[in-house]
Amino acid sequence: MIPLLENRKWRVVKSENILHLGEWLSVRQETVELPSGRQIPTWFVLEFPDWINVIAITKDGKFVMEDQYRHALGQTCYEIVAGVIDKGETPLQAAQRELSEETGYGGGTWELFMTLSPNPTNHNNLSYTFLARDVEKIGEQHQEATEDINVHVFTREEVREILDRGMIVQALHAAPLWKFFATEK
Amino acid sequence: MIPLLENRKWRVVKSENILHLGEWLSVRQETVELPSGRQIPTWFVLEFPDWINVIAITKDGKFVMEDQYRHALGQTCYEIVAGVIDKGETPLQAAQRELSEETGYGGGTWELFMTLSPNPTNHNNLSYTFLARDVEKIGEQHQEATEDINVHVFTREEVREILDRGMIVQALHAAPLWKFFATEK
Repeated sequence: MIPLLENRKWRVVKSENILHLGEWLSVRQETVELPSGRQIPTWFVLEFPDWINVIAITKDGKFVMEDQYRHALGQTCYEIVAGVIDKGETPLQAAQRELSEETGYGGGTWELFMTLSPNPTNHNNLSYTFLARDVEKIGEQHQEATEDINVHVFTREEVREILDRGMIVQALHAAPLWKFFATEK
Repeated sequence: MIPLLENRKWRVVKSENILHLGEWLSVRQETVELPSGRQIPTWFVLEFPDWINVIAITKDGKFVMEDQYRHALGQTCYEIVAGVIDKGETPLQAAQRELSEETGYGGGTWELFMTLSPNPTNHNNLSYTFLARDVEKIGEQHQEATEDINVHVFTREEVREILDRGMIVQALHAAPLWKFFATEK
């Protein structure tokens, strides 16, 4: 039996926004008090919008994936479709929009597959993974100027090989893909 | 056959450190040029030290895990042992130190199980997961003042139930645990 966890909330004693970089990132500096009464003078919270990503599978069982250069790590990476939830969008709407924009695929049946935190220590946001089955090519790719994306359509065996070789480095993508292979027989 | 990816490096036109918060985080603001020749005037890179975490299994097949309050998300979360690689440490040394400090467990045989990026778009660091088998209780837990950790020793079936119920929210922990259940029969 798994114990339910008491939420041992820290009390915020002081909170100040110290950096605001457009819609990309804000940094909040806080003084917090633990349930023990001990205070931590400086704790930083990175404020991001929520994110989505998509495991997209075509009617004939192929996985719609991509590669993209990721500048902070300095590597071109295999990934699943991912993006930011825009203001006013539901997570599902954002996921369907990103799949369409980045790959030209759409349609099919969608379910929420996994909810993750990029890092609950310092990120305030969540990332929602959708599993989209029976998607089809319904249009053209529409990349933003800052995107440099190649679309790949892989068999299930190829996706597993990419995972086994450690070629999915982004944790928010590796987690749902490994969950898929652990749960979908 | 999985295509090898050409590394489509972006050229750094300008780079400036705009925030330095001790050893916790630095933010670098850059102007970059894509292979297309198009420039992106502002790109932010979060500079962190590398991290480790540990899937630790005792001689009798139990998993050494913990729960901890995570302030940015505002939730108490089930997790595996995790921490920062200190200067001068190898990833393995850091992993063994963190397991000992946070839980009092040690010994056993260790292997590097997975290497992940927290987010290759904006993080410059990596997180190394070790799989430690046959660990034993060899001492006491030594928490830092900012830590509020409870240790749990779960059966394999309990860990799987925690995963199935979505109770591992940290992507860097969910990915190696799901990989474990996909690959270790």
